[in-house]
Amino acid sequence: MAIGQNQASDIQGLIDRLLAGDARALSRLISLVENQASEKAFIMASVFPHTGKGLIAGITGSPGVGKSSLTDRLIAHARDKGLTVGIVAVDPSSPFSGGAILGDRIRMQSRSTDPGVFIRSMASRGHLGGLSVATRDAVRILDAFGKDVIFIETIGVGQSELAIAQEAQTTVLVLAPGTGDSIQMMKAGIMEIGDIFVVNKSDREGADQTVLEVETMLMLEPSKNGWTPPVIKTQATSGEGVEELWTQIEAHGHFLAQGDMGRSRLRAQLRDEIVEILTERLKADIWQRTKRGQAIEDLLDTVERKELDPYAAAGRLMELIG
Amino acid sequence: MAIGQNQASDIQGLIDRLLAGDARALSRLISLVENQASEKAFIMASVFPHTGKGLIAGITGSPGVGKSSLTDRLIAHARDKGLTVGIVAVDPSSPFSGGAILGDRIRMQSRSTDPGVFIRSMASRGHLGGLSVATRDAVRILDAFGKDVIFIETIGVGQSELAIAQEAQTTVLVLAPGTGDSIQMMKAGIMEIGDIFVVNKSDREGADQTVLEVETMLMLEPSKNGWTPPVIKTQATSGEGVEELWTQIEAHGHFLAQGDMGRSRLRAQLRDEIVEILTERLKADIWQRTKRGQAIEDLLDTVERKELDPYAAAGRLMELIG
Repeated sequence: MAIGQNQASDIQGLIDRLLAGDARALSRLISLVENQASEKAFIMASVFPHTGKGLIAGITGSPGVGKSSLTDRLIAHARDKGLTVGIVAVDPSSPFSGGAILGDRIRMQSRSTDPGVFIRSMASRGHLGGLSVATRDAVRILDAFGKDVIFIETIGVGQSELAIAQEAQTTVLVLAPGTGDSIQMMKAGIMEIGDIFVVNKSDREGADQTVLEVETMLMLEPSKNGWTPPVIKTQATSGEGVEELWTQIEAHGHFLAQGDMGRSRLRAQLRDEIVEILTERLKADIWQRTKRGQAIEDLLDTVERKELDPYAAAGRLMELIG
Repeated sequence: MAIGQNQASDIQGLIDRLLAGDARALSRLISLVENQASEKAFIMASVFPHTGKGLIAGITGSPGVGKSSLTDRLIAHARDKGLTVGIVAVDPSSPFSGGAILGDRIRMQSRSTDPGVFIRSMASRGHLGGLSVATRDAVRILDAFGKDVIFIETIGVGQSELAIAQEAQTTVLVLAPGTGDSIQMMKAGIMEIGDIFVVNKSDREGADQTVLEVETMLMLEPSKNGWTPPVIKTQATSGEGVEELWTQIEAHGHFLAQGDMGRSRLRAQLRDEIVEILTERLKADIWQRTKRGQAIEDLLDTVERKELDPYAAAGRLMELIG
């Protein structure tokens, strides 16, 4: 792997260029980390002290509610205010971008001629099981680069998307009227992740009804330690409501930065992350041991003979490993 | 939780009824296991010795290629031959079924008046991170129940779907002409998982071209230990090619049952499963320890001060745990 043969000094050079605002170094470093280059640990360790400055917002919701258009409007709004923007667009449901999704991306790419905007698309390719980690790493590198705002946009609201959305500090949950989404999401426990709710396509019939459903649901939920999630009506096509959405994203960012809640939330995210890294290492460790060891092979014999089921076999192995 | 209060004797009763062919017991046991009832380990241990009889095929491919229609045809074909069928329909990209997907499901549900067919839909709801485990468990219960054939159908070909498809013994990868899917999937390393390739909608322009692409790609791939994946043209709407597809699914089943490859494949799946169960237990264990311990809190302080990055913190913790 050519990438792996970079000298530490080359990597240090890239990091210096990143911190000096070189977009090519930014792109290169994200790729290196994404491809699990041997220098990944060094890169992330070097980048980490420079993080924590950007506003990080996740934009999530069912396909077709207008997330991409809304993100596009938010980018324009932030740019008008002179802020630089990074976007990580993630599609965990597909190993590649196709059809409508590609259309959205192309539309977003129209912003890519603006040097103040950096867009990175990520599909599941090469990330089996690790798309949320790849997203988190990319967001950190964008943060260290100095982007004022970083948006994480996901395609749907499935299990992978939720994990990804939770890498953000502020989660914007986008709904559309008449889809029954709010009720379904409430049942599925998804509404809990929203810091800000958006009813997009608010010119459509049923918009007020959807707002009411969300507000009613929020009244039933315990308060999020002092933050009451606002419900905002937007029209991504006309731009209506986008300013208010932006104001609320900033307000939530300030809320997190000032209060104890922000600190404890960040701390909980870091704790999860460290446990996750540790688990992955232990897993690799077990895998190595069980591939080599006779114990697992003996156990597999008994499982093949149906004398033991896999859960019981794992229990035996746990005892053996201690 | 009312479910958790079942006596072991009640569960044993359910298992006896399952093995005697009671569909209500089948449904109930899948729900219990899906909901992580405290009796899950007991149920899966009781069921496991009765597994290994059914033919288990995963049907996967991009949305819109006609997987559901094809599965429907395969069900009809198997039923004509007097075989009983179980279907696990999985949608990891959504916490609930919506729109077109629901339409497909309703169509499939038309078979549910046939007592020889049992359909179970699964969405990501309540399965955060564990949909492939839930699928595997459901397949095992269907197998123990005595279903001759079990189909696992997924919505797309994303990372979750691939993990799910790999719970099957035989993976059928469905493509449609003119989508460029085969090239994209080859790049994404997905083509490798196919034991049987289907070019559906074969009356469309470009079908022969797609067949050629797949065949060329297969010539470049190393042989799968004696099995050469066939490429079959089908039309789910008319039923053309479905008989050949069925014949190949059976042929692959026989191939796995007779050769060393089938055994080593099953053994590798079991090994993965045991390692996975063990990892989950270790993770829960670490989580408990780190929640309680001071070590992780001290480390988090240093990470918050940006003196240490999360990877380095995980390394320190690994040393501490030993």
